[in-house]
Amino acid sequence: MKRIGLVDTTFARVDMASLAEKEIREGYGDVRIIRRTVPGVKDLPVECKILLDEGCDIVMAFGMPGKKEIDKVCAHEASLGIIEAQLMTNKHIIEVFVHEDEAENEKELYQICRDRAVKHARNAMSLLFNPEALRRRAGSGRRQGGEDVGGVHE
Amino acid sequence: MKRIGLVDTTFARVDMASLAEKEIREGYGDVRIIRRTVPGVKDLPVECKILLDEGCDIVMAFGMPGKKEIDKVCAHEASLGIIEAQLMTNKHIIEVFVHEDEAENEKELYQICRDRAVKHARNAMSLLFNPEALRRRAGSGRRQGGEDVGGVHE
Amino acid sequence: MKRIGLVDTTFARVDMASLAEKEIREGYGDVRIIRRTVPGVKDLPVECKILLDEGCDIVMAFGMPGKKEIDKVCAHEASLGIIEAQLMTNKHIIEVFVHEDEAENEKELYQICRDRAVKHARNAMSLLFNPEALRRRAGSGRRQGGEDVGGVHE
Amino acid sequence: MKRIGLVDTTFARVDMASLAEKEIREGYGDVRIIRRTVPGVKDLPVECKILLDEGCDIVMAFGMPGKKEIDKVCAHEASLGIIEAQLMTNKHIIEVFVHEDEAENEKELYQICRDRAVKHARNAMSLLFNPEALRRRAGSGRRQGGEDVGGVHE
Amino acid sequence: MKRIGLVDTTFARVDMASLAEKEIREGYGDVRIIRRTVPGVKDLPVECKILLDEGCDIVMAFGMPGKKEIDKVCAHEASLGIIEAQLMTNKHIIEVFVHEDEAENEKELYQICRDRAVKHARNAMSLLFNPEALRRRAGSGRRQGGEDVGGVHE
Repeated sequence: MKRIGLVDTTFARVDMASLAEKEIREGYGDVRIIRRTVPGVKDLPVECKILLDEGCDIVMAFGMPGKKEIDKVCAHEASLGIIEAQLMTNKHIIEVFVHEDEAENEKELYQICRDRAVKHARNAMSLLFNPEALRRRAGSGRRQGGEDVGGVHE
Repeated sequence: MKRIGLVDTTFARVDMASLAEKEIREGYGDVRIIRRTVPGVKDLPVECKILLDEGCDIVMAFGMPGKKEIDKVCAHEASLGIIEAQLMTNKHIIEVFVHEDEAENEKELYQICRDRAVKHARNAMSLLFNPEALRRRAGSGRRQGGEDVGGVHE
Repeated sequence: MKRIGLVDTTFARVDMASLAEKEIREGYGDVRIIRRTVPGVKDLPVECKILLDEGCDIVMAFGMPGKKEIDKVCAHEASLGIIEAQLMTNKHIIEVFVHEDEAENEKELYQICRDRAVKHARNAMSLLFNPEALRRRAGSGRRQGGEDVGGVHE
Repeated sequence: MKRIGLVDTTFARVDMASLAEKEIREGYGDVRIIRRTVPGVKDLPVECKILLDEGCDIVMAFGMPGKKEIDKVCAHEASLGIIEAQLMTNKHIIEVFVHEDEAENEKELYQICRDRAVKHARNAMSLLFNPEALRRRAGSGRRQGGEDVGGVHE
Repeated sequence: MKRIGLVDTTFARVDMASLAEKEIREGYGDVRIIRRTVPGVKDLPVECKILLDEGCDIVMAFGMPGKKEIDKVCAHEASLGIIEAQLMTNKHIIEVFVHEDEAENEKELYQICRDRAVKHARNAMSLLFNPEALRRRAGSGRRQGGEDVGGVHE
């Protein structure tokens, strides 16, 4: 049975991991989900790496960087750590970050979070169970958090 | 007995590590606290890593980047090193940085420092002793250094 | 037989990997091509590293960063990870990124993608089979995605 | 006998390593000092690492980034490498960088260099021989290259 | 016999490696020079590391970042990779980058390239054969690509 780690933060304002967990449970019954919560995005890389070293096959990392310049820097640092953690383990961590200033109000913020969390949950499952599904969508302008933009052809 | 490392700097203007130590000693009697001081934030990563390699279960890193542009760059470099040190040890380092320009005066600066140091001390203890406490707060908009902003729901 | 990995994304809007695959198949019959698709550019580094660790001799990584500032940051993070993956494996990853804002319209976007994908496919093959071909072009102002600018001599 | 490495550059305009060496020799007779010079700040990380791997207990790295934007980027890259070298060796490298544009004239430039080199030499010696001296100064607003700014208390 | 690697790109507009090779051959007969060419600056780090792992004692990396903002980012990424490659091998890589916008015309561009390539070739040889020559120039304001600016004394 595949093991999927979901790591989120207390800093974020939307419970994205639960949205992803629901999507995974409904679509892929035969998996084990392990959840962890850390304070902020900079605490995500090591927690994801711990889960991968403990046997998770893939991890999703959920975060919501704030509106300040320093928040952008923190997100950048976290992303670099998440990439490094993957290179150290040869496993994927699907980063699901929603920047608070992507939305103009709380309703929109929630919608972006739900769309991105759900679609990336499907991406994570495709990487594990059905890589061919991703292959068929190569270069087709897929987006998480909003509508796809489509491919450009000759 | 769990070992907690507290590493701070002579550069900072507030003794945040002592505020955290007090919080930990009052709430979690059965721990051993090891303190170290380095000159500036860029000296924090290796000192934290040394403590983790010597057996600390978690480390808190306290720093106060100054107001100049170069200070922001130093903080960014330190943060990247702190993340890397965690990935090399598979243990958490809770970064407690207060930027000097977050406050408009010294009184406010002290208040931010106290709030952030104390709350992150609790976060560090939760990671060690009570991860479920963090899990219950997932996506709930917690802040250290100021008031929580709260979660956003459907 | 040499093994060449081609990794692309569902985020990109042009199927660059297929353009590169066609170029390679037509010019270098005796190779084995392995293709993989990941969601976005930040998922490329680990997928490339996995392929290299599994025996690929070289990998090409195709991505199309979007127009937003955050997209530029993601591309930067991906590039750093791609460089690190090479240092960990001592093999080349040829990065083929086309920034969506390099072009003024979709037709131009496709042309840039095709030119860059095809020329970099030749570069990758030269690194594998004919390094002397690259040596002869040292310092000669070659460009991928547009016209060469030429060398400057005494 | 403790071994202290001092690495500087031909690019810098002030011989800071000699100022630090003088401070160390006068205050701490029983040490062995090893000096090395490299072209620029980006050559410092590996030279410091070589010295640490060869048995130095601590290294000081002296550099003077120029006034141009590219010089700032070089200094940033060097600093990241210096932090990484420390994490790879579990030893301290005290970075002593003076940016040429910190001073308005050559006299001031020299004064900043002397103050920073001498104070950081003392910091390096404290890390080796007297960490308690640093502990007593935690959070007290110490500065190298200018006057201390002092601590902020409740 | 010492082995010196020279790695350059097809992207650059001046054949700097040949200028450095000429300087080395004329001044230091008893060395073996190995040359490699890669497409762009981001391909330099791994090629340099391969050469160092294969026995080169030092490597020079030549590149010419273009005028666009993205070119600056690529150069930054390459530089970070070059520093990391050095830390992984404990050997020096002398980076010889000339930014295309350092010069106002092609004649000046060539002059900067020649000056920087030749002086850094001497630096590389000094690191290998005569480190004392660098030591004597510590803090003396040496420049590659233009005139020295000189030291500042008390």
